[in-house]
Amino acid sequence: LKIEGIIPPLVTPFREDGRLDLPAFEANFDVYSEHGLGGYLVLGSNGEAAVLEEEEKLALVSLARARSDGRLVVAGTGLESTRATIALTLKAADRGADAALVLTPHYYKARMTPDALRRHFEAVAEASPIPILAYSVPAVTGLLWPVALSAALAEHPRIAGMKESSGDVGLLGRIVAAAPRSFRVICGSGPVLYPALCVGASAGILAVACCAPGPAVALYEAWKTGDHARARRIHEGLVPLATAVTSTYGVAGLKQAMTLAGFKGGQVRAPLLPVSAEASAELRDLLPQAEAAAVV
Amino acid sequence: LKIEGIIPPLVTPFREDGRLDLPAFEANFDVYSEHGLGGYLVLGSNGEAAVLEEEEKLALVSLARARSDGRLVVAGTGLESTRATIALTLKAADRGADAALVLTPHYYKARMTPDALRRHFEAVAEASPIPILAYSVPAVTGLLWPVALSAALAEHPRIAGMKESSGDVGLLGRIVAAAPRSFRVICGSGPVLYPALCVGASAGILAVACCAPGPAVALYEAWKTGDHARARRIHEGLVPLATAVTSTYGVAGLKQAMTLAGFKGGQVRAPLLPVSAEASAELRDLLPQAEAAAVV
Amino acid sequence: LKIEGIIPPLVTPFREDGRLDLPAFEANFDVYSEHGLGGYLVLGSNGEAAVLEEEEKLALVSLARARSDGRLVVAGTGLESTRATIALTLKAADRGADAALVLTPHYYKARMTPDALRRHFEAVAEASPIPILAYSVPAVTGLLWPVALSAALAEHPRIAGMKESSGDVGLLGRIVAAAPRSFRVICGSGPVLYPALCVGASAGILAVACCAPGPAVALYEAWKTGDHARARRIHEGLVPLATAVTSTYGVAGLKQAMTLAGFKGGQVRAPLLPVSAEASAELRDLLPQAEAAAVV
Amino acid sequence: LKIEGIIPPLVTPFREDGRLDLPAFEANFDVYSEHGLGGYLVLGSNGEAAVLEEEEKLALVSLARARSDGRLVVAGTGLESTRATIALTLKAADRGADAALVLTPHYYKARMTPDALRRHFEAVAEASPIPILAYSVPAVTGLLWPVALSAALAEHPRIAGMKESSGDVGLLGRIVAAAPRSFRVICGSGPVLYPALCVGASAGILAVACCAPGPAVALYEAWKTGDHARARRIHEGLVPLATAVTSTYGVAGLKQAMTLAGFKGGQVRAPLLPVSAEASAELRDLLPQAEAAAVV
Repeated sequence: LKIEGIIPPLVTPFREDGRLDLPAFEANFDVYSEHGLGGYLVLGSNGEAAVLEEEEKLALVSLARARSDGRLVVAGTGLESTRATIALTLKAADRGADAALVLTPHYYKARMTPDALRRHFEAVAEASPIPILAYSVPAVTGLLWPVALSAALAEHPRIAGMKESSGDVGLLGRIVAAAPRSFRVICGSGPVLYPALCVGASAGILAVACCAPGPAVALYEAWKTGDHARARRIHEGLVPLATAVTSTYGVAGLKQAMTLAGFKGGQVRAPLLPVSAEASAELRDLLPQAEAAAVV
Repeated sequence: LKIEGIIPPLVTPFREDGRLDLPAFEANFDVYSEHGLGGYLVLGSNGEAAVLEEEEKLALVSLARARSDGRLVVAGTGLESTRATIALTLKAADRGADAALVLTPHYYKARMTPDALRRHFEAVAEASPIPILAYSVPAVTGLLWPVALSAALAEHPRIAGMKESSGDVGLLGRIVAAAPRSFRVICGSGPVLYPALCVGASAGILAVACCAPGPAVALYEAWKTGDHARARRIHEGLVPLATAVTSTYGVAGLKQAMTLAGFKGGQVRAPLLPVSAEASAELRDLLPQAEAAAVV
Repeated sequence: LKIEGIIPPLVTPFREDGRLDLPAFEANFDVYSEHGLGGYLVLGSNGEAAVLEEEEKLALVSLARARSDGRLVVAGTGLESTRATIALTLKAADRGADAALVLTPHYYKARMTPDALRRHFEAVAEASPIPILAYSVPAVTGLLWPVALSAALAEHPRIAGMKESSGDVGLLGRIVAAAPRSFRVICGSGPVLYPALCVGASAGILAVACCAPGPAVALYEAWKTGDHARARRIHEGLVPLATAVTSTYGVAGLKQAMTLAGFKGGQVRAPLLPVSAEASAELRDLLPQAEAAAVV
Repeated sequence: LKIEGIIPPLVTPFREDGRLDLPAFEANFDVYSEHGLGGYLVLGSNGEAAVLEEEEKLALVSLARARSDGRLVVAGTGLESTRATIALTLKAADRGADAALVLTPHYYKARMTPDALRRHFEAVAEASPIPILAYSVPAVTGLLWPVALSAALAEHPRIAGMKESSGDVGLLGRIVAAAPRSFRVICGSGPVLYPALCVGASAGILAVACCAPGPAVALYEAWKTGDHARARRIHEGLVPLATAVTSTYGVAGLKQAMTLAGFKGGQVRAPLLPVSAEASAELRDLLPQAEAAAVV
């Protein structure tokens, strides 16, 4: 499984009445396809997978597959139970996903020992027809990733790597160092993409890539070609926007930034609330700043 | 809605192959019905609701209703999305639940402001035919309960109170003090039942009541009749077991303690793992200690 | 060492220019002496020991001894190094302190294992001519108290108990249960005094006792005589003030509440800042509410 | 004030009896002086300033000044009270310190608002004859650094920058971006030196530089000259040792690593404890690994 470059975690646009807006979801590919992206993630945290029904999820996988121009399609299939995760992974594979992103179960977080997590990921990988990627996002799960777990998981032929979304560059580097090179570590936090690449991340699945794919790809390319001065410049222009659409305003902020940038962001689903007018104004200012840094 | 006394959060026994064991679930009522309990909670955290399918959930509600001898049946119906929570609440009411326990949504925890939570609970209460109880359990959700939210929710005629499972007696007391008397605050942490009753909890939904219903009810009765010396004595005998079946060993520990006490605990569902033989031996020692304290 | 009842952690009044105001410190005893207090703590967190010079500390101990009417005088002598803590304990004993309150060292908090803490407390107790009390205050130190440490410390003849200021009633109860009865556990958090007494605290060292000694003593007496209805009523009246002068506004709030109540609070020392006018107005409202609850 | 390159936070060797070992402290300069270091920090966290008496501190400043060969000497002078910090800063300047490193006060951490911290640092800078550097180390203080504070402090002509020891590269980058270029941000965490340099740190004050100055300086030089491949290689060799002498084993681990590397580490002062034989064996293995990475 080749995982490289910048991969947007696609949002799921909803209509005002809360129903799925598949045409809006589809329309965004028209622009994304022009940007040299490394693939697409559907059903991630930014895709509001936590509030989607199974039939909605599968419709989104099918559509992403159809519109991906052969690029990588990763589908988020992690659920709290191992058996339910396996069932959804099989269905996502059936709809054409190239790989599954499996979130750490976290409801019973005090019980999610390294051993329990290892068994979970291995059981899913064992049953899955497609490669899986583990997904650690402590801001959601409250679980810190045990570094040694990566090395253990890397031994399974269908565990291809992980998405590391803590924003802790030191931790990401230790994970890279502890696992074999074949285990790909994907940076899941836009504000630290540049330093994460420096310490060994092989790709970025980043909210900011949904609303500003150009600068995100430009940063990756600059780093790839060894132009660190340019990479750092784009990084500095991108950080405020990347922070705003994640820790500051979350999915609703990302969707609003997408709408402001000409994409179809759509509504969020309750209990999420739309962002305020002030937040929207702030996002409107940050978008051109990110674009400008990549132009110079 | 009258919520008083001790309410066990019923476990969901699974067979070795991971399937639901409804006869085991049903058999436990034979003993519970002899204990002067205040009702039953089905589909709580200890009921492993997070790993149940919807059809399994509804079968459990129906069975609890049938076996409750007219006692209160509360069903856990909280999901991440508001619309899904409403849909499940309607179905649980249809199966005979007297009230719904609605967990705070928490996947997007950084966005779960007091306003977002209030809208969520009010939307569910507005659509629900039965009273609802909010459910705060920070060890699972990572969300601290905002004290002022209780007073706001109390204004809705179908929000009857909340289950407060932080184990923070000071917080529980502040919630009691901030809300009108009609808003019932239920202690969700066995190790602090006695001090929680002292500062105003009206009931206890406690894991330990699943494996040691006698001592739990005895503690409640002692407090109710003003026998604080006896209440504290039972409290001290119960705390080690109550701690073991929650923070130390979790649901798997509770199920094992139930099995050791003659109930049908059954297996846990993956990714949860069964407890070790050492843990089992420890639980075997703690059970009689809890029973003994209530006898004196 | 008899430690019972309510013990105010005396504040250290400063003049506008930052210098110690010993006459103000002394004047407060005129009122305290009328209240049936169990003794005095000098050089605690509320006494701003962290910003006092050694000669200032010793002057305060001497003055407290002189004005205590034979009541217990406890002096805070904990410093980061073991040898410095021993040296200060010896000097405090020489100035007449009956016991020393020894804060957990916490600068190197990741290294403060149960073993390191035990050696520290035992070394101080070994060298001290007076009994010592361990002092755990996680909001300051970031260290959670290991329950088993209490039982270990209780074996030393000059370690008389501890002040537990986490506000976690469950933890306080577990400490009481784990140690022999001779090891006294003192509640260090006013908002949970009542439930802490219920689970076994033998005394309270409480900021709120500095500005509202009457209600604090009344609550303790009500509990002592088994009048739980009255104890809970005073508790509810006292909690808002007790919360305001600790977690909400800290030492500066306590000093302002004292000044409003007719005591001599004096200024705080930088970097602490005085409270705002709004905070002062809030404190002015909370004081009579606390007094009223104890009158009924 | 020119702050560049690698600066070891000098340890303070103690004798077996706990007394200061000044000859050991002095001897380490013989080796350090050969390594192209950017200067020295005396009285930092690794210097055990928290357990030193004032006269000991001043003796160490004098000795560092005398042995520094004209390199920068920074002295840690932060104490809990503003007035005591000012007094110590004046004395350190008098003994020849070029700059003072001022730790955030943290005993009353809930009160250390951005405003309180700003006033503290400005008061010290105002009174100080030498430039000051703010010092944020959340693992010790429990205080997160407010990004906007850096920009505010940068306006004072004698606040030259800060030491940022959270290990959070994203935060360090945001601080760099928010402040003017004249405000130097020094990385205080060896395991993230390389990515921190990438996002704008201008120097590193790193425990690992005390026991492995060669590789630390080599990493800095590789980054400085744009040789990112070499920088990352040294980084990967250095991280395990840098982690071991900080978060894993702390000051005692650092001192033992120094002793193993031929420096004079000396003993720690109680309540710190020496490391175990197993820890020592681990450090013995990590030292050559760090050196080897810099040789290639």
